[in-house]
Amino acid sequence: MNNDAAKSALIETGKWVSQRGWVPATGGNFSIRTQTGFVVTASGYDKGHLAFEHFLELDTDGKVISGQGKPSAETALHLKLYQLVPQTSCILHTHSVAATVLSRFETSNVLSINGYEMQKSLSGIHSHQTPLEVAVFDNDQDIERLAERVAEYHQQSPILHAVLIRGHGLYALGNSVSETRRHIEGLEFLFACELERIKLESTK
Amino acid sequence: MNNDAAKSALIETGKWVSQRGWVPATGGNFSIRTQTGFVVTASGYDKGHLAFEHFLELDTDGKVISGQGKPSAETALHLKLYQLVPQTSCILHTHSVAATVLSRFETSNVLSINGYEMQKSLSGIHSHQTPLEVAVFDNDQDIERLAERVAEYHQQSPILHAVLIRGHGLYALGNSVSETRRHIEGLEFLFACELERIKLESTK
Amino acid sequence: MNNDAAKSALIETGKWVSQRGWVPATGGNFSIRTQTGFVVTASGYDKGHLAFEHFLELDTDGKVISGQGKPSAETALHLKLYQLVPQTSCILHTHSVAATVLSRFETSNVLSINGYEMQKSLSGIHSHQTPLEVAVFDNDQDIERLAERVAEYHQQSPILHAVLIRGHGLYALGNSVSETRRHIEGLEFLFACELERIKLESTK
Amino acid sequence: MNNDAAKSALIETGKWVSQRGWVPATGGNFSIRTQTGFVVTASGYDKGHLAFEHFLELDTDGKVISGQGKPSAETALHLKLYQLVPQTSCILHTHSVAATVLSRFETSNVLSINGYEMQKSLSGIHSHQTPLEVAVFDNDQDIERLAERVAEYHQQSPILHAVLIRGHGLYALGNSVSETRRHIEGLEFLFACELERIKLESTK
Repeated sequence: MNNDAAKSALIETGKWVSQRGWVPATGGNFSIRTQTGFVVTASGYDKGHLAFEHFLELDTDGKVISGQGKPSAETALHLKLYQLVPQTSCILHTHSVAATVLSRFETSNVLSINGYEMQKSLSGIHSHQTPLEVAVFDNDQDIERLAERVAEYHQQSPILHAVLIRGHGLYALGNSVSETRRHIEGLEFLFACELERIKLESTK
Repeated sequence: MNNDAAKSALIETGKWVSQRGWVPATGGNFSIRTQTGFVVTASGYDKGHLAFEHFLELDTDGKVISGQGKPSAETALHLKLYQLVPQTSCILHTHSVAATVLSRFETSNVLSINGYEMQKSLSGIHSHQTPLEVAVFDNDQDIERLAERVAEYHQQSPILHAVLIRGHGLYALGNSVSETRRHIEGLEFLFACELERIKLESTK
Repeated sequence: MNNDAAKSALIETGKWVSQRGWVPATGGNFSIRTQTGFVVTASGYDKGHLAFEHFLELDTDGKVISGQGKPSAETALHLKLYQLVPQTSCILHTHSVAATVLSRFETSNVLSINGYEMQKSLSGIHSHQTPLEVAVFDNDQDIERLAERVAEYHQQSPILHAVLIRGHGLYALGNSVSETRRHIEGLEFLFACELERIKLESTK
Repeated sequence: MNNDAAKSALIETGKWVSQRGWVPATGGNFSIRTQTGFVVTASGYDKGHLAFEHFLELDTDGKVISGQGKPSAETALHLKLYQLVPQTSCILHTHSVAATVLSRFETSNVLSINGYEMQKSLSGIHSHQTPLEVAVFDNDQDIERLAERVAEYHQQSPILHAVLIRGHGLYALGNSVSETRRHIEGLEFLFACELERIKLESTK
């Protein structure tokens, strides 16, 4: 994908994500792998009203080669994920209530979700009996350090679809914009189910 | 109804269902009984943006007679339900958080709902004191086997309005598109009420 | 208000109520007091898509003087409320999850709400320390009998803003369409708060 | 900002706030500091459909210098907050379910929120480990007295982003309309998370 096509795709995606309430208060950031490196949203803009001037073009090492504004501090995590998971073409980082709360409720480093048909919306999962495992990392304002922890974890348990940052939000990966969007929709549905299921089961 | 009218009705219905959040991540599938058999959605498309090319025409045995793409694996369950419940003209399969979570919370094979005026939105129910019973089946990736279990159950307790698949979603039936839509709306309202009622009662 | 103006006002109101999800599955019914009696919605239509032909004109005794279709069985309750509360000009009957669930949780015949600034959105209430009391009646498929119970209750405790029918929904009253709409919005906000407050307090 | 620009900005903001459900039943009020004093919404209008005639122009002492209608009783609190926090240019007072319920659940005079990346949406907060503290005041129909309590509190613990009135709602402050809107979005996200987190933790 070329840089302009990538920006257009993320402008449209931003509207879609914003309508669902998953990027409040200028939160979140989006990227697409392009022919020359990456396109990523600049920091501080409303993701529901993006325009071409709200993007930066980066080379494969993360150096800004075009565009104004500040790259989000979390750009380092996008780059790390593209390096670790080569088939990834699009990364969407969102903030939903369900993802944020579940990532705090789960105190281990893996959120495991099982028994839902919707797990099959994640690529490579073909049964509700195949647990969906999402790594959960403690939040860290030092993004380089956080990226290193993600890399270390990946050596043991390869990251496939997504990463949760505790109390922070979701990074969803996919081999295309539409796959990443489908992964977010599937994951957010499952997070919403788990929130309700946990509360309901506690009444028994 | 002819095949083209059926597709148009399901395109419109898809927008309606999608706006309510009940077919996330390309989930769900829809069908209508036609003069020549059935029209059913092909697998893998966003149900909020359907077009004529996203449908398959099947004969009464479920053999594809027109259309491209893969019929959903769950087509076998649509066919079985049309055979079992002859007055059925439209089947909508949806994934809502409430239906999914309640179907897991209910560990028996019947979800019984009572005491709500809204039960009267289901055809044939004329009082809040007539329990609404919805069969719940364990999910199964072998759809033929699942369809057989539905058929066996139906011999004992006829299926009327809907079937829940545990951790999976809702199949709603009706004698017209509008009746099936009304059944989904009534059922989803009741599921949402039950979720809240159970949590609230547990505080007593 | 004349009959046509009343129908137009209720068509617009129906869209507004429907967008908020308070009249699912053709539920609910609306009326306005007119120069010649009452205008009321006919039974069985989607309240978000009303047209002139979906209304009946009734005289002050509830006899149909114009219009096709069946008056809702609940028309008798509208008439009784207009008789009991003379300043009432518009009655909107809605089905929300919060109203339905709270009316079942509250087992007495009064739901009392206190401590919210939003109580002041109900006419005649000027402080959060003035309890808002809403009568709750057991549901009954015999509407005439239900209407009689409402009348008896009113002799003891005058009905001011609204009535809840247990497991059924809300009847909101006002001296104009806009007042009744404001009453519904205020009441639904308070019901939603109470649902959350009760669950939250139970965690202490 | 001049008075007309302020009114236009608040008309647009009113639509935005209303769509999110945070100003039901004509609740809420908005203001902007202008060259000649303040512009504030008049009492009793739907904040989602504001027009120029729904605003009052006040001088810096709160005296009405232009406009019809009644200034909201809460105008006194807007004025006090502008005096106490000089960098404030826009104040939005809203009523959400989450803010209202949390302000009652928290029985002390400070709601402290910690561990969320979203805290950084509030100006001056740069880490999820910097607690966000929002003062909570008991509701009072005597707004002058309430404003005095706010002033007293501010001497001890300066008010930065927002104030909660118990069972009533949120006053959000910012140095521009867009900052106040971002503060509201960030705060409402955090309130919604806290509601869910508290319920979820209680199941452990």
